[in-house]
Amino acid sequence: MRAKELMDKNFVYLNANDSVIEVSKVMEEIRRFTCPVVNDNKQLIGWVTSFDITKGLREGNEKISDIMSGYEEIGTVHADDPARKAVILTANNKFVTVPVVNDDKQIIGMVRACDIVELLSELYDIKVSKLYEAMQNQLKGVTWEELMAASALVSQKTTGVKISPEAYEENIMNSTFGEAIWSTGGLEKFFAGLISVGELVIARRVGKARR
Amino acid sequence: MRAKELMDKNFVYLNANDSVIEVSKVMEEIRRFTCPVVNDNKQLIGWVTSFDITKGLREGNEKISDIMSGYEEIGTVHADDPARKAVILTANNKFVTVPVVNDDKQIIGMVRACDIVELLSELYDIKVSKLYEAMQNQLKGVTWEELMAASALVSQKTTGVKISPEAYEENIMNSTFGEAIWSTGGLEKFFAGLISVGELVIARRVGKARR
Repeated sequence: MRAKELMDKNFVYLNANDSVIEVSKVMEEIRRFTCPVVNDNKQLIGWVTSFDITKGLREGNEKISDIMSGYEEIGTVHADDPARKAVILTANNKFVTVPVVNDDKQIIGMVRACDIVELLSELYDIKVSKLYEAMQNQLKGVTWEELMAASALVSQKTTGVKISPEAYEENIMNSTFGEAIWSTGGLEKFFAGLISVGELVIARRVGKARR
Repeated sequence: MRAKELMDKNFVYLNANDSVIEVSKVMEEIRRFTCPVVNDNKQLIGWVTSFDITKGLREGNEKISDIMSGYEEIGTVHADDPARKAVILTANNKFVTVPVVNDDKQIIGMVRACDIVELLSELYDIKVSKLYEAMQNQLKGVTWEELMAASALVSQKTTGVKISPEAYEENIMNSTFGEAIWSTGGLEKFFAGLISVGELVIARRVGKARR
């Protein structure tokens, strides 16, 4: 995924000559805490946050040019950069928004922290049962019942708590990938558990075939 | 993970009688776009954003009580709620911050969108090779070389592009879980590919044992 696929295209850009009072009204209306400032060629030349606005209003500054930060203080990503770059900039600098620029340094969109949360949380919300369905689909000839029986056994071995295949099935129907990796202690451990299940069903299938 | 484990404890809470001008300075200093308003018992009674502040400064409102939103307009989570609830509230409502309350409705922390991005992005940044290490560790007796050989074969079968075990190894050393799920087309597909590799190395091991 590229930055341009994640960015919000509905943003407002400001001109250095805009009035601080008018801009404050616009930012309230569109509910944006940060806005880019551009030149006549839509190139990013500065940045304004609500903090600049409140200070400007208190101190009676009239123009955006009086209160904006310079271009060099802003973390930007290129439209074709991996979306992950915007995610890392946001995470490391606690940014609310990261502007997206094209080859001519023109601003074409904004990646917002809340949009990143939405994107990343979709992954976390995938039901664990979907991963078991993918596993069953991959391991041709293995039934869902065999998979649940093997999973209950592996779970019992790992946690020491007895669980029926039916109870295990109910668990994975109701839990998400995000909950599963938190409860098992991380992606690697969660994944190792699934591999363990796969190993057991394959071993049982081989055992049956030999009989 | 619970909301209380994800929340930021360094926040500032406001009193309804605080001065709008003084609060604007504090919010600039601590760089927070939103602040909770509490009563003498630290119970959440309202909410102030930078939008309320800029409007208040323009219109000459003196006290926080004149500009704050009511408690009922705020999405809160309980300290013991799953952290996921704060993530979903943030994603669905485009919130910047979600306040965390205890049983007495006292505010004890704030979950910020940027903190969620940091948490979720850590998962995405796990190297794919770590998952292969977990797989090798799980499938006792399988060597790293056997795992890479099987992976190169599965990759070739899936993509139609010939790849050596060495080139495959280099790929997984340099790519992250986030990149891998985007490039394979989703978590289920990525996972099915890994199960496929596991299946192949097990089949090869069984084959060897029979000889």
